[in-house]
Order: sequence, then structure tokens, then C-alpha cells
Amino acid sequence: MSMMKWSGWGAEDVTFSAADKPALGPFLEQHLGLRSAGALTASVAFAALDVPEPAASDELLDALRRVAGAEAVSLEARDRVTHARGKSLRDLVRHRAGELGRIPDVVVRPSDEDAVAGLLAVVLDADAVAIPFGGGTNISGSLEVPAGETRPVVSIDLGRLDRVLEIDEASRLARVQAGVFGPDLERQLNARGWTLGHFPDSFTYSTLGGWIATRSSGMQSDRFGDVAELTRGLRAVTPTGVLAIRPVPATSTGPSVREMILGSEGRLGIITEATVQVHRVAQERTIRGYLFPSWPAGLAAMRDIAASEASPSVTRVSDAPETAFSFATKKGGSVVDRLKSRALRAFLERRRGFDVSAMCLAFIGYEGSARHVAAQRKLVGRIVAAHGGVGIGSGPGALYDQKKFDTPYIRDYLLDRGALADVSETAAPWSALPEVYDNVMAAARERFDALGVKGYIMSHLSHSYHGGACLYFTFAFRPDPVRDGLADYDTIKSAIQQAFVDSGATLSHHHAVGTEHAAWLEQDISAPGVAMIRALLEGVDPGANLNPGKIVADRQPAPVER
Amino acid sequence: MSMMKWSGWGAEDVTFSAADKPALGPFLEQHLGLRSAGALTASVAFAALDVPEPAASDELLDALRRVAGAEAVSLEARDRVTHARGKSLRDLVRHRAGELGRIPDVVVRPSDEDAVAGLLAVVLDADAVAIPFGGGTNISGSLEVPAGETRPVVSIDLGRLDRVLEIDEASRLARVQAGVFGPDLERQLNARGWTLGHFPDSFTYSTLGGWIATRSSGMQSDRFGDVAELTRGLRAVTPTGVLAIRPVPATSTGPSVREMILGSEGRLGIITEATVQVHRVAQERTIRGYLFPSWPAGLAAMRDIAASEASPSVTRVSDAPETAFSFATKKGGSVVDRLKSRALRAFLERRRGFDVSAMCLAFIGYEGSARHVAAQRKLVGRIVAAHGGVGIGSGPGALYDQKKFDTPYIRDYLLDRGALADVSETAAPWSALPEVYDNVMAAARERFDALGVKGYIMSHLSHSYHGGACLYFTFAFRPDPVRDGLADYDTIKSAIQQAFVDSGATLSHHHAVGTEHAAWLEQDISAPGVAMIRALLEGVDPGANLNPGKIVADRQPAPVER
Repeated sequence: MSMMKWSGWGAEDVTFSAADKPALGPFLEQHLGLRSAGALTASVAFAALDVPEPAASDELLDALRRVAGAEAVSLEARDRVTHARGKSLRDLVRHRAGELGRIPDVVVRPSDEDAVAGLLAVVLDADAVAIPFGGGTNISGSLEVPAGETRPVVSIDLGRLDRVLEIDEASRLARVQAGVFGPDLERQLNARGWTLGHFPDSFTYSTLGGWIATRSSGMQSDRFGDVAELTRGLRAVTPTGVLAIRPVPATSTGPSVREMILGSEGRLGIITEATVQVHRVAQERTIRGYLFPSWPAGLAAMRDIAASEASPSVTRVSDAPETAFSFATKKGGSVVDRLKSRALRAFLERRRGFDVSAMCLAFIGYEGSARHVAAQRKLVGRIVAAHGGVGIGSGPGALYDQKKFDTPYIRDYLLDRGALADVSETAAPWSALPEVYDNVMAAARERFDALGVKGYIMSHLSHSYHGGACLYFTFAFRPDPVRDGLADYDTIKSAIQQAFVDSGATLSHHHAVGTEHAAWLEQDISAPGVAMIRALLEGVDPGANLNPGKIVADRQPAPVER
Repeated sequence: MSMMKWSGWGAEDVTFSAADKPALGPFLEQHLGLRSAGALTASVAFAALDVPEPAASDELLDALRRVAGAEAVSLEARDRVTHARGKSLRDLVRHRAGELGRIPDVVVRPSDEDAVAGLLAVVLDADAVAIPFGGGTNISGSLEVPAGETRPVVSIDLGRLDRVLEIDEASRLARVQAGVFGPDLERQLNARGWTLGHFPDSFTYSTLGGWIATRSSGMQSDRFGDVAELTRGLRAVTPTGVLAIRPVPATSTGPSVREMILGSEGRLGIITEATVQVHRVAQERTIRGYLFPSWPAGLAAMRDIAASEASPSVTRVSDAPETAFSFATKKGGSVVDRLKSRALRAFLERRRGFDVSAMCLAFIGYEGSARHVAAQRKLVGRIVAAHGGVGIGSGPGALYDQKKFDTPYIRDYLLDRGALADVSETAAPWSALPEVYDNVMAAARERFDALGVKGYIMSHLSHSYHGGACLYFTFAFRPDPVRDGLADYDTIKSAIQQAFVDSGATLSHHHAVGTEHAAWLEQDISAPGVAMIRALLEGVDPGANLNPGKIVADRQPAPVER
């Protein structure tokens, strides 16, 4: 798996194109004031960057080479820059502007768990800092070196730990190395008839270890479970040795250590391996499109589906603004396509009384035997109809399924045109979702107005659970070029996060805390909750040598006797 | 809810009777050498106990009365003795023998969370010890005061926090106080058409807070989830204040604090409230009996059911020894019943080729709409048939369902007759279960032989998950009256626990660690796992004032500045 662009999403040769999407230009002009022929605000060239010299002693570098091999240790500028941050909006904006900040001094790529253990021992011995690195897709600031860090910083890239080690077919469990990327993992599993079924938007460039370290969730988690459920066994190199959690289906062994590593963002150790639940590739798999007359109708339908005896693999409904955006990114299509669209619109307006500006697009996925899929679709169809929804077939769902990993590219496209776009997502009980939604939309729009910027915000519900669901917001605005765009961004993003916790929702459903969300942690899990996490982190890593500053801000590290 | 007997299980007026079970006497004589008219080994009378005086200063008692009310503070001998231990075999044997050990000095029954918070502040201020108490059913030593404890010990009985505070019908979540007993909780929920669906064997005398503190699992957890899944939100009084975890369906907020409180056995705080998933009482509910020709056939069928598109509410299969025991505890029944049994036996032997001494009794439960139940039964029926199993209708299942909470009484019955009986349970991946089973049976029988005692061990699989299941062992033996029965018990129980961890299984699936299983914790979750739990416990409760000695042995507490 090749690295992503140093200052943007995805492979060097892939970019988002509007050329084949005739409705997008007018949409962006109307809502963000972007002219389709607008001036590009390009990134600085890599060669123009002022990359600081590595601040690692020869003694430290020699020790790293001894345990991991000389070829595993890189001081190259591009390596260090690419490992300096994830892909948050703040990361992209600063990288593009050439503001690198405190980057790692050295990147090491260990080939196995022993090498990882050796590296951590060297780091602790030298009172250096270790930051584990998977695919670098994190958007919460979980990968960045704290600005004032004076100790040498070692980025530990797990990319060489990329193998499925074993599939226990009777138990439907696979033992997998943590550095494997999504597509490579699925390829190895599919070759033997299995799938993990974990498909986050970042899938192409994210790794198993990264998913675990951030409590990731994927498009089909309704069926397969979030990564917290998929992950049964674990191995991680910690300051007190190699942690080994057995892949038992449930256990009553005190506070769950498995659930401490999940979401630990590298602060408790470096995940080297996990035993994950796998499923046989299904006989049939389909994602169907539906249209609802309104957002409340769509929400209520999803809530009723979660309470029903149906168990779809995907549940997702967009609000009206996101539905409008989806239609704006449609490819031109044939005359027949356009005629079909017009006929559907006429049907909805005249026969079903839809206000098409309020309608909401939904995708519901089904997976299993043909008989199971048919029965599920029937159960869901009845609930959809009861809420005034209409099925629109498998075409839109298939398209969504193909294009789902392309979404992150659009941020770069917008940045090129001077607009900032980002996402914020949360989860709450079903009863709280309408208010969470209303409060977030109001907070964002109020900020757009106060800042005097053209802005757009849209949302979808995804990941339905028994007691609630995830709401995922995407927002974009075009900052005044004379002002600090990131400062305006902070104002908007903060208003959204504050609306989450003020409305009974959590600061994030699946994007982790990092540094971006740390300010809201206490309001979410209460001060004693933060104290418990702090007790754990400080007890395990008293010197704050492991990815310091993430989740909770560090106190001054206590002097450590070695 | 009244307290249980001070030295045995259950209500004062309920005992296990063999009078209506004609096959039981001969069974116990054959397998344990118990004569049905054997001499009783009675418990000492309560009046004969040597109950130590409470070692709590007037100052401490006054402070407790101030925060909880005078009527909430009890120094009564029976209160203190009943709160001294749970109901493990070791607890019963020592209580019956009048060996009380270090009992709590005072029992306090706070009426609300504020009073709990006040009590904990008083305890910390006085450097005393607080042990939260729910129903007192724990069988892992989680409730006992360490033998050498010199500080005053306060048992905090949550029994007055017994209300369902709120049902969020749209979210299917109920906010419930932690001290409520199982039957009272279900009564309050059922009255409004809901159920929690959590039915552990201890149900009648255990509480919501106790279930959470020990990671309990219930008979229908296949459908409703273990208590770790049912519990979404939490409130607990901790040394740093009242912890409040929001009832969100999933969250990405670092290491899970919710999963730290789950299984914390009172060491991190006192659980006062939880928000739990509830379900509508089902239209139809049935538990069906099945017979399998062998244990391997029964195991394989359960594994295939877990992989199928069926989702039964109960999965349970007994091995041949437990099947034989089940038949031995059958009530006499009518001539028609006996004729039916004889006809079934003839059918199995002649038509299906069963060896009836090897056959295994299974129960599978279904719940939901009539259509759903019918479809599920069909799917399961096909899998059962593929493994040579035969359905035997709803009679045995209904009987099991009625009698499931009576099992704990049988230990007292056996103790009265000089036999020791106990349980040990575990979980492992499907592929490991046959070996776990064989190793445990061999280890126990080898111990019976080495000790020269008549012993019996039997097992069932219950709680099926995607990747594995729980194995639940029950064993009994009749110690030589001249030897120390508990020492022999330790030998056998230790051999079983050791076989668990040596075979890749966990030390307990749902009975917690306490003091009984602490010796195996490091072998199960590895030394770094123990170090993580220790860091958490010591960081949150540096003075070890909260239920010390449980889960991990305490170090000498560090001097605490207050």
C-alpha cells in the first residue's frame, strides 16, 4: 500500500472531478459562492517546504537500527512530513500552507512484534516519544506531535505487519496483524471465502490497528458490529510487556482491558495483532434506495426498523440538504436516465404529494441467503411505506456502494477552490436525535451568519442500534480571504461539538478524541470519567512517552525511575 | 425484597425437596455415595455464633448517621453477618460452621444517590473501607472483608434504591436505580409492557448494580445481550465525584469508562443507577426441548445455529452426565407420563439408534412475533436434524423455564447431607470448546481419584456468540469427614480453573474474579493486562478504601494526602 499525498487525501494520481457532474458547479456557486472557474488556492510545493533537521541523537538512531534493522529507519524529509499528521481539515490546511510544526524526527517501520517491542524499549530508555502510525487517515489530531515537545519523536509505522496469520474457521475468527490496510485485509480474507465487513469511509487508506485505536465504525456495522465488537482478541506492546488478550466471546475478568485498548490512540501501547470476527461472504448483497417525504419521517422509519425483527446490514437516511447534494453530484447520464428522473419526480409530486425540496434519500442494505434478503426487504418495505417512503430500486444504492470511498477527495477539491469542508459526527438515544439535529443545524447556521460567510451544512443518520443511532454532519463554507480561515472553522466546528454535548449526544461516535475533541471530553463523560482515563494512562505510561497529549491533556510527567 | 437466609440460599421458608423426585435418592447414592436417609450436617444456630463487636468509632457512626439518616445505620449482628459474604460454597461452609471471619462493622442503607455520595465521603475521610452490597448472591468472594483488615468496614446496602425512574419509550431505554432486585425490576417494567430480559440463575436475589459490577449474563442473553451490552448509561459515586455516563448507543471517547465500571466489583465506585436497554414483552415465547445422540453432536449443532440466520433467545445443551441428572430430578409424574417416557426411549433406541446413556438434552428458546418464532424454529430444526437431534416438544422447556431459579437451593440440600457442590464456568472460541471440556472433565476426575472421593461432574453449553460460547460445569463430591472438606474442594476447583486457562479459555464468563479467581487473572489476561487494571484501581482509589483485595491483590496502600 503506497502512502497518501503528503498534503491531501488518497493516491497521487486520483483527484475528484466535477467535469462529469453538470449539476455540481451551479450547486456550489449557489450555496458556497464558489464560481466553477474560480481561482485555485494551491498547496505549496514539497520542495519549497522548510523541513527541520531530525533532532535524534546518533545513539538513539543506532539503537533503533539495532532492534528494527537499518533499512527500517528513515530520516527522509518526505517520510517525516507524511507521518507528521493525519488528514483533518486543520492538518490539510497547515500542510498545504507549509506550516509543518513539530514533525517526527525519525520514522521506523518494524517488521514484526519483536521489533516493535524492541523499539518501545529503546524509546522508553531514551525518554523519547513514540507515536504509532497506521494509514494516517485520522481526522481528530491523534497523530500530531505536541508543539512544545522537546524529546526526540519516533513515528512507528506498522505497515509491514500486514498479514492474515490464521483463520479459525470453526470459530469464525481471524488472527490478523495490525498494520494491514482495509483492501489488503479484505483481499486476503476473500481469497478464503471470508470477510471482516468493516468499511469505514477511510477504508482504502486505514488499517486494522488504527480502527481499533480509534473505535472505528463502518458502513455495514449494523450487521457486523463496530470494531469494538469485531475485535475479540488483541496483542499490544505496552511499557510493561506484551499484552495478550484471548479471543473469548465474553469474559467476566474485571474492568475490560480489551475495551481499554480500544480507543486508546497509542497511549497505552502499540497494537500489533488482533483476532477479529469474520463472516462467510454472503450469497446475496444489495443496497436499495428509498425516498422519504421528510426528515422526521426518515428518522422515525429508521427507529422503527431498529425495533423490528428485520436486521438490515446498512441503514442510512440523508436530510434534505444532503439529498440535494447527492443529486447535484450525479453524473450527467443518458437521455433515458434524465427521463426516468423526471418521471419519478412527477410521480412523487403528483401521486404521493411529496415536496421534493424536503425529500430525504435513504439507503438500506441487506445481506445473506436469497430467502433471508427477501424476507428482510419485505419487513423493511412495510415500515418504509408506513412512514410514507417509496422504494427507488437498487441503482442508487449500487452507485453509493461503488463511490463510498471517494468522498474524502472532495475536501481537497474544495480547498483548491478556497472553501473549507469538514465533518462532525455523534450518537444519541433515538428520542434525542431530532433535537440534536435541530440544535446542530441552528448552531452552525448561526455561526455562518455571525461570521458573514456563505455556508452549507447537511446530515445523515447511519448506524442504527437498539437504543439510538449516529448522526453525521458535513459542513462547508467559504471564508473571507482576508481572515484566518482556520479560526472561522474553529468557531463553527466548536459550535457543532458544543451542540452535541449540550443535547445529550456524545462528542464522537467513531472519530475518536485526539486533540480536536479533547475539550468536550469532560462534558461528555463527566469529570470522574476523565479522572479514570487519566489514572489509567498515567499509571501505565508515567513518563508520557506514548503519543502524549491525546484524549486528555498531559500533566507534567512525573520523574520516572528506571 | 427480604434478605436471604444468613447461612444458605434463598428465602427462609424455601428448601429443596427430594420427596417428590423418586429417582434422585438412588442417583445421589450411586454417584456420591449419599444415602437418602443419611445423617444431616446442620448449620450452627444463629444464636450460637460468636459475633465480634463492631469496631467503628462513635465519631464515624455519627457521621454515617448524619449523611444517611439514623434509621439507615445498623449495628445488628444479623445484618452484619448476612452482609459479610456472598453465597459461594466457601461462604456457605464457613458460615454454617460458625467461622465468621472479619465481618463488616456497620451496615448502612442509603435512600438515594446523595446519601451514597455522603457515605463515601465519610468513609474516605475516616480512612475506613466501603463494600457495596446488592443482593449478596456473589459466588466469587467479591463481598468479603480481607482477613487482616484493621480499618472500620462499612457495608453499603443499595436495597432502598429500587425504582425504575423513567422509561424512554422511543429509545427503548429505562433509567433504573441500581439496588432493585430482579423480580421487582421485571414487575415494574412489565407493568408498562417492557422487559429487560436479564435472567441469571441468581435472578430472584440479585440486583441490577450487582449484575453490572460482576458482568453478569442471563439465560436469554443470546437475544438481549449480556449485562455489558444491556447497560448503556451509568451513574456511580466515585472518589472523585459522581460519574455520569450518557446512554449513547456507541461512542469513540477513548478507553471505555463504561466498560471500566462493568466488572469493577465495587473497587472504582458505588453504582447508583443505570440506563438499560428494554424490549417490548414478546407476543410469543417458547423454549423447546431437543435430544442429541452425543455431546459432540450437540456442540456442533449449537455452533452451526450461531453461524446461521436464526437468532434464538436461548441456546443450551447439557452433556450426558447433566442430562442424566436432569432426568433424575424429574418429578414422579402420572402413569401417562411414564408411558410417554418409555415410548420416547424406545423410539430413540430402536428407530434413531441413540445410545441413551450418551444422549444430551438441549433447550432452545424463541421469542417474538408468531411468524418470527415459526421461521426461527424451522431454521433451527433443520440444523438440529442435520446433527442427528430430535425435538421433544415444549414440555421439558416449560418445566426448565419454571424451575430455573431453584437450582441454587440444591447446594444447601447437599451440604445438609455432607456433600459439597459448586460451579465453574468459562468461555472460549468454538474450536477450543471440545478440548476445554475434555481437559476439565479429566482434571476433575483425576482429582476425585487422587483424593479418594466419590465425585460427579457435569456440564452444559449456554450463551452462544458468533465466535464461541460459555461452558458451565457443576461438580459435587462427598469429602472424607475426617479431612478438611474445603481443602479438598480447593484442589478440585483449582484443577478446573487451571484447565480453563491452560486450554485457551477464560477464568470466568459471568461470575467475576473476586478473590476466588484472582490467582488465574494473570494467566488469562497476561501480566500487562493485570498492570493496566492495577493502574486504574490504584489511580482512582489510592488508599484502597473501596472493596480492597478484589480482582487484583492490593499492594500496600500508598500514604494518601488528604
